[in-house]
Formats: sequence, C-alpha cells, structure tokens
Amino acid sequence: MNFHYPNGKRYNPKQTESIKKGKNVTYSNRGMTLEEDLNETNKYYLINNIAVIHKKPTPVQIVHVDYPQRSAAVIKEAYFKQPSTTDYNGVYKGKYIDFEAKETRYKTSFPLKNFHEHQIHHMKNVLKHGGICFVILRFSSTDEVYFLKAEHLLEFWERMANGGRKSITKDEIEKFGHYVPIGFRPRIDYIKIIDYVYSLT
Amino acid sequence: MNFHYPNGKRYNPKQTESIKKGKNVTYSNRGMTLEEDLNETNKYYLINNIAVIHKKPTPVQIVHVDYPQRSAAVIKEAYFKQPSTTDYNGVYKGKYIDFEAKETRYKTSFPLKNFHEHQIHHMKNVLKHGGICFVILRFSSTDEVYFLKAEHLLEFWERMANGGRKSITKDEIEKFGHYVPIGFRPRIDYIKIIDYVYSLT
Repeated sequence: MNFHYPNGKRYNPKQTESIKKGKNVTYSNRGMTLEEDLNETNKYYLINNIAVIHKKPTPVQIVHVDYPQRSAAVIKEAYFKQPSTTDYNGVYKGKYIDFEAKETRYKTSFPLKNFHEHQIHHMKNVLKHGGICFVILRFSSTDEVYFLKAEHLLEFWERMANGGRKSITKDEIEKFGHYVPIGFRPRIDYIKIIDYVYSLT
Repeated sequence: MNFHYPNGKRYNPKQTESIKKGKNVTYSNRGMTLEEDLNETNKYYLINNIAVIHKKPTPVQIVHVDYPQRSAAVIKEAYFKQPSTTDYNGVYKGKYIDFEAKETRYKTSFPLKNFHEHQIHHMKNVLKHGGICFVILRFSSTDEVYFLKAEHLLEFWERMANGGRKSITKDEIEKFGHYVPIGFRPRIDYIKIIDYVYSLT
C-alpha cells in the first residue's frame, strides 16, 4: 500500500490507487466509500441476524506508546503494515466467509495490483480449507459493484504470473463475476449472491 | 482494556489484568506470552496445512498521520479501541472458528472481567450462526491452559449478570473445560481439542 497522499486527507486504505495517481479523492456521487458501504451492509446483516461478518482492523506496527497519568494511552509512533490476510471475514450459515474489497477508477479493466501477494496466498489457503472466498470489485467512476469468486481471481492472477495481462478486463468480470446492485439497506447485498453462487438457500 | 502501564513497558494487550494491578509483567518461566504461543501455534497450523487461523490486528483509532516525502507514512497520534469481536478467527475443515484467549495470575479462579461485553455479545452471535466458538484460558502462575466452549463461558457470564460470582472457579474450568497440554510444536494444540469436543475427526 502507498500512503503518500497529502496531509490532512482523510485516512482511507481503500483508495490506494487514486492516491498513487495523486488524484483528489471525492465521492460526491454518493459520499460513501466501498468500505463504508460494506461496513453498513455488515452492520445490517448483524442487526438483522443474517450473518456475522466484520472488517479486520488496519494492521499497524506500534513503535512508541505514551502512558499519561489518569488518561488513555497515546500511540505516538506507528506504521501501517501490509495486511497478511483479506480485510473481511466471518460466519454465515455455519460457513466461513472471507473476502477482500477493492475499487478502481479505471472504466474497462480492474488492475490486479490492487491485491497483495499474501492476500492471494491467503485466499488459496481459505479455499483449501473449505471456506467461501471472493472479492467485491467496485468501478468507482460508474459505481458498479461486482462479486467475483476467489477461484476466478486466482486464475487471472496466474495468467499475470505467466506473463499475461496485469488486469482483469471488465468483460471478464461481467462474464465470471456477478453484478451486485447498490441498494438502500443493505447497500451491497453480497449475501444474496453467496446464496445463489454457492446455493446455500 | 486498560493501558496505564508504565512507559517503556513492552506493548502487550493480553496482560491487562496484571497491568491493572501494577504488577511487573515477566514471563521468565518461559519467556513467551499466551499470544506469542498462539501465534506460533497458528503459524504451525498454517504451514502444515491444518487450519487457517489468524489473530486480528489490535484495533486502533488513527487520529493523525504524517506523510513525509519518499518515506512511509507515520502515525503520529492514535488510540487503542475496545475490540468489538474476539481476537482470533479462521477456518478449519470448512468450519468457522472463533475464539478469545486470556490469562490470569490468579490461582484458583478466572475473573470474568477479562472479557468485554461486546466480546460476549459477539460469541453469542457466532454460536447463533453455527460457528465454533470458545476461549483459551491460561493460569500464568502455573502455566496451565484450558479450552472452554463459549456456551459454558456464557453460562458463567449469565450467573454473574444475575448477581452471582464474578469469576469462574478453577474447579468449574476443570469440570467444563479441557486441559490443553503445552507442547513444543504446536505450543497450544487447541485443534486437537476441537476435533474431540466437536467430533470433527
């Protein structure tokens, strides 16, 4: 991940790509990031007793902590760490659910650089142990969200590893993935897709 | 959690209790904390393709981040947040695994104050959705480790909520829990207990 965005900018690990491009990150189109939408969705699932899925905290390497008397400890020096797993996991109908969510500003393809080697490795492990693993991909310019099974993502990653293209074309995502309509509540109803794709209904 | 321990002390969220007592935290008996033992154990499970279980990062509220040119972002001000879930989760034999690990310096009972209300709430939710949920309890003075199903912990929590004792007696832990012998590799082989308790073999 790259955190070189201008000081004062609201901290948002999900927007690495636009940051790399030095673009000004705005969501005026809806005022919500993919992460916020998913957190709301997961909250909805929790409150409505549908599933228990949480985003993992951002991994931070704590270097120095101050312990003022009679007040909370203050972390004075810490660094962002590369996540060794995906961001979201939990349980649905007794099954282990694990996924990563990424967005791109590109319109016709989704760059694979949005994923880290260890995340890919983690997804392989989850599948090996019978977990349900996928990615939520958002095209921010058009606000389109897709559900793609990790099995497919891994194939595209392999293709890149073998010298192929460094991205997944939007056509491929439309072909192998599933469009997730943006709703009001929940915002991104990916559980409905899980029921369908893994026939859990 | 309480982070009022003296400055310079090594950051260790697992030792809240001894910290509250202002005791000097040492592990000369083995030089490893319960967290380190479990991380090693989980690493062993991962490497040996037995299970994929990770500790979640410590939840931190990031307030201020500096972005020096040509170097990594530095978190200059952040605070520890109450965890809203348990610390460990993952997948084993397709099943969702979720647990919390705590240690006490007491010899005859395990104080329930080691757990937070939201963690208890989270455990209830995990059970409701068919996940496997438990706690790993360590008596640090004797270095004894026990596996206790969340179902039992919740009963003891209920008892406290109804005005009963604020701890679980060691006898109760021995009766309802399972002793986990400390090994070399893995250090704390809780998967073996899972196989037995939930008959997954």
